[in-house]
Amino acid sequence: MEKLEVNLKSGVSYPIHIGGLNNIKLDGKVAIITNPKVSGLHLATLLSKLTAKEVFIISISDGEEYKNFTTFENILNDLFNHKLDRKSTIIAFGGGVIGDISGFVAGVYQRGIEFIGVPTTLLSQVDASVGGKTGVNNSYGKNLIGLFHQPKAVYINPEFLDTLNDREYNAGVAEIIKMAVAFDLEFFNWLVDNPLNKDNIVYAIKKAVNLKIRVVQNDEKENGERAKLNYGHTFCHVIEKETNYKKYLHGEAVAIGMVMANVMAKELGFIDDEEFNKIFHLLQINNLPVKYKIDSIDEFYNAFFLDKKSSNGKISFILPNKIGDSIITNEINEGQVKGSLEKYLSLH
Amino acid sequence: MEKLEVNLKSGVSYPIHIGGLNNIKLDGKVAIITNPKVSGLHLATLLSKLTAKEVFIISISDGEEYKNFTTFENILNDLFNHKLDRKSTIIAFGGGVIGDISGFVAGVYQRGIEFIGVPTTLLSQVDASVGGKTGVNNSYGKNLIGLFHQPKAVYINPEFLDTLNDREYNAGVAEIIKMAVAFDLEFFNWLVDNPLNKDNIVYAIKKAVNLKIRVVQNDEKENGERAKLNYGHTFCHVIEKETNYKKYLHGEAVAIGMVMANVMAKELGFIDDEEFNKIFHLLQINNLPVKYKIDSIDEFYNAFFLDKKSSNGKISFILPNKIGDSIITNEINEGQVKGSLEKYLSLH
Repeated sequence: MEKLEVNLKSGVSYPIHIGGLNNIKLDGKVAIITNPKVSGLHLATLLSKLTAKEVFIISISDGEEYKNFTTFENILNDLFNHKLDRKSTIIAFGGGVIGDISGFVAGVYQRGIEFIGVPTTLLSQVDASVGGKTGVNNSYGKNLIGLFHQPKAVYINPEFLDTLNDREYNAGVAEIIKMAVAFDLEFFNWLVDNPLNKDNIVYAIKKAVNLKIRVVQNDEKENGERAKLNYGHTFCHVIEKETNYKKYLHGEAVAIGMVMANVMAKELGFIDDEEFNKIFHLLQINNLPVKYKIDSIDEFYNAFFLDKKSSNGKISFILPNKIGDSIITNEINEGQVKGSLEKYLSLH
Repeated sequence: MEKLEVNLKSGVSYPIHIGGLNNIKLDGKVAIITNPKVSGLHLATLLSKLTAKEVFIISISDGEEYKNFTTFENILNDLFNHKLDRKSTIIAFGGGVIGDISGFVAGVYQRGIEFIGVPTTLLSQVDASVGGKTGVNNSYGKNLIGLFHQPKAVYINPEFLDTLNDREYNAGVAEIIKMAVAFDLEFFNWLVDNPLNKDNIVYAIKKAVNLKIRVVQNDEKENGERAKLNYGHTFCHVIEKETNYKKYLHGEAVAIGMVMANVMAKELGFIDDEEFNKIFHLLQINNLPVKYKIDSIDEFYNAFFLDKKSSNGKISFILPNKIGDSIITNEINEGQVKGSLEKYLSLH
């Protein structure tokens, strides 16, 4: 068991516990927001560790397509039905969808109550559960409505990972690779040398969470540096939207998005062929998808403008600048963007 | 023209301009959220002072019953349709309903963009526009979903008050009286001596805004002292809900709520007969309602428990403790509450 600490400049602090699941003692009412699959597999474990005045289980449908306004409103109504008050706590028990929507609900219920993250997927353990980004998707795109609402604590239990299938597990690996490429060459090299099996995963989780904490502490609300965590995501969001959030798991779309970003970075001279190939290979040996059929480059290009990171008509891209470093740029013109998408397609 | 400054411990600061309307220069896109009445009367004035890249007008139906989730979602969709981005600004142009819902929208659009308050009613000028409380109502009660999102600036233009009808004007006076009773004996005595006509109103606005700033600076998120601003509101929220937000303007329901709180305060010995009568008289000469027919004291009592300020089964009341001071208590038992409601009815 290890305890990391997030200390934000706004004065907010919270612990991230990594290891087995601690005992969680809460005074007021608790609503656990989860889905049928996670609750079937692991709810008994969580409940055995939890002490609270009253516990309610709110189960929402599993899948990114349910991370929407309707689910958000339904959860809020459940909380009002069960008369949760300002001293109550929400526990987000599941993957990224559960974490994002639960944090958003907690952020606006009676103008904000506390929530605790108990992420059960690798992706949410290494990424989504830290940093307080919450939100839902709508017909315009992903995570377009939401807020920053930091958890009171996060409990990362690697034992929950045993029940993930390979695709879910690998989707989490994609975000770990993302952290390494964007921030840490040494960690990247470690990932090349060490398969992410059960023996190695706890080290990789700690490493990724520590990198994320460092970034978030310096830039809680993403006014600068934090945007680098979105390496691969400008492309990923368009891919997910075009495929209705159904074809790919988030981490899979991130993997494809990283390859697209890397093609652009190579075209612009930020990385060389060898670096491009190293990252490409690392994604492939982790069984992550790297190919995507773009039907219309024009439509793909136009969809960038709904990304939160685009403003005043300029698209913001995060590109690797050598492995272990990254840059944010909105200086890439339409011709360059479309050219690099064509180059990406020619890889296939 | 006078400029007051709100400096919050979280590091957020913003100016409150009181007087005519300043020139407002903004770089990005701007969405003005308003209603048909306010825009018909005053939009030309606002637009003549505003410089921005592009301006969109979003007009929502006028009335507390439209401060709901549907309107909230519609506004968000309008913003996405017009491709507002993170550098865009929302201007809340109207009364409390417009301010509350616009601030909430601004707080969650792409995880938060800036908003400017241009309150046009007396009530919103003296109270709602300062302090960053935002939200919407739902079937469970008032302002139950929302967040704290501070404006970038507030412009209070007393000239907008010329077009208010008497009821709207007096509803604002109720909140001014509330501030005086809860926080400032000297100001209360000034209100007794000075009718709130056109000559006096700017002084009263400044005084009320200054009192509110002081309270909010000490307790931004209402963990303590700030709750005193809700003097009269525990009752008011039940009254508004029972009458479907239609019969009374918010300030009118606050006036009735203050009388109910004062009966309780008198019963418990916090204020004496003379103080009770002084406040009662000040409300009456400002043509505010003081009577309300409670159909069922049991139902009225049960409705308290959905108030955000009630927790762990205890209702929180804010009561005057002499004029100019107030206390927060959750130690009043069911018998005492119901007894004081009966006493209130016997006044009629």
